[in-house]
Amino acid sequence: MSWEQQYNLISDDFFKGRIYALAKMITLVENNPDSAWKIIETLKKNTLRDAPTVGFTGSPGAGKSTLVSAYVSMMAAKNQKIGVIAVDPSSPFTMGAFLGDRIRMRDISESENVYIRSVASRGSVGGLCDAIYDIVDVMKAFGFDKIIIETVGAGQSEIEIVYVADTVLLVMSPDSGDEIQMFKAGIMEIADGYVVNKIDLPQANAFSVKLRNTLALENDVKSKRKVFEVSASKNIGVEELEKWIDEFYSDMSSSGEIFKRHERRLKRRVRSNLMRVMDDIISSQEVGKNSLREFKSLIVKKYIQEEACDD
Amino acid sequence: MSWEQQYNLISDDFFKGRIYALAKMITLVENNPDSAWKIIETLKKNTLRDAPTVGFTGSPGAGKSTLVSAYVSMMAAKNQKIGVIAVDPSSPFTMGAFLGDRIRMRDISESENVYIRSVASRGSVGGLCDAIYDIVDVMKAFGFDKIIIETVGAGQSEIEIVYVADTVLLVMSPDSGDEIQMFKAGIMEIADGYVVNKIDLPQANAFSVKLRNTLALENDVKSKRKVFEVSASKNIGVEELEKWIDEFYSDMSSSGEIFKRHERRLKRRVRSNLMRVMDDIISSQEVGKNSLREFKSLIVKKYIQEEACDD
Repeated sequence: MSWEQQYNLISDDFFKGRIYALAKMITLVENNPDSAWKIIETLKKNTLRDAPTVGFTGSPGAGKSTLVSAYVSMMAAKNQKIGVIAVDPSSPFTMGAFLGDRIRMRDISESENVYIRSVASRGSVGGLCDAIYDIVDVMKAFGFDKIIIETVGAGQSEIEIVYVADTVLLVMSPDSGDEIQMFKAGIMEIADGYVVNKIDLPQANAFSVKLRNTLALENDVKSKRKVFEVSASKNIGVEELEKWIDEFYSDMSSSGEIFKRHERRLKRRVRSNLMRVMDDIISSQEVGKNSLREFKSLIVKKYIQEEACDD
Repeated sequence: MSWEQQYNLISDDFFKGRIYALAKMITLVENNPDSAWKIIETLKKNTLRDAPTVGFTGSPGAGKSTLVSAYVSMMAAKNQKIGVIAVDPSSPFTMGAFLGDRIRMRDISESENVYIRSVASRGSVGGLCDAIYDIVDVMKAFGFDKIIIETVGAGQSEIEIVYVADTVLLVMSPDSGDEIQMFKAGIMEIADGYVVNKIDLPQANAFSVKLRNTLALENDVKSKRKVFEVSASKNIGVEELEKWIDEFYSDMSSSGEIFKRHERRLKRRVRSNLMRVMDDIISSQEVGKNSLREFKSLIVKKYIQEEACDD
């Protein structure tokens, strides 16, 4: 069955808000990477409004899933409809902890207003699967009020999430080795807000102070970024966080920042798509006796042929 | 002055082994990224032999620079000529520690047989500057017996080094938070050998045991990878490491593995080059009202024009 046929079978129920049709639509997009953008263009014609996308990232053990649960429960209780995308890490080492997280998320997954989708990041160059961009668009078309992305922060995905989410929160915990992470290149720079979770731990205050000092050492823009002291499991500080996220989004909307971020995201997606085509060609060709320049010419020639065939 | 003119001015002295001409040749390649491959092709006509490339990576504080110093001193004392490429991290947070490393490297930098070049990784997508590939080729043409690359392991560069170096060593230390790193996705998988440095520390044995157990949990190929217990500052275990690196390289040569790695590297360089051109185009174009597919078509069209102009 072509994607058009499958699409037609589910689109009515999809726009009526039936969850089974949402799940099928996401699968359709995941299974047809080459047609995904055509499906999304079709969906977009019926998309009523843009939904804010919020990304939560941080080290394993920082309590991201607990925080996302608390935050999402709060919104669901106000009858907001929330889509959650949980990105699985590829490493078998962290798989165990992650399954634990999924169990902690059970309470929100039993709410009528919440839909959770797990996505494997396996095999993706950027750490986050390209399909996440597409899934966000499907969720927007479905009419969610907000879309939440949770990534187990392992390397590149922390950086990549900036491009997927409108707002990025870095979740840290005083007991998970984050003192080291804190100084790692690239990680501090990406967040709009910092959440110090498990604020009831004895070492939490010292951790917070250190974080604020570290941020103050940086340039003006960054030091203005917000630090939240939270205990997700005890529901301390989550409401303040929720309020700030909404305010931050409307500030971005009025300042035009959100437009810049959308533009950056679209460029990123196109780049990612072009690279995928290029990578397929590169891996299928033998280098042989070609020099760097000769092999490059070969790839470019093949690439031009490929793109010419794509309508 | 064109690159040809500059090249002609220094090439005689370069092939006579004059260090000033090597430094100038590297700068020439760095300053002319668009002509770098042409310069390298010209150099290659006079390159007598391939030199093994050994990469050392690992977290800040693991003692990489001390280890590289000890290893390189050992080879220099046997009258081998060694080129060292030290990759600076981009983050201002780690800059301080890095300057300290450079000072520790002073003893080898005063040897006649050693040439050290620092390279900034700033601005590079992959974490390691593309120019490093080119610099390695220039060093090979110069006639070094071995080329050493040291990267301060910060994220992506740990993965990238696999493509630049023939042999990759992951340097760890029991006192630098590496217990956490150990389980991080992607980092364990890249190394051919693991060096537990500062083996004289009290916690070193427990760390070694844990590392060996972690490796044993993985599949057969990985568990065969070598673990070295070393104290770089006390010169313990460095000679064994040196011997193994040479044996490993000659094993790779006879098994054909080295050919595979060279092929992979060439593909990587071509990919990186193509992406750079593509990124320049993407960042210079406005998205405007274009959809994903329309913007992609725009980029591909520009790209094809660009490549057509390149001889």
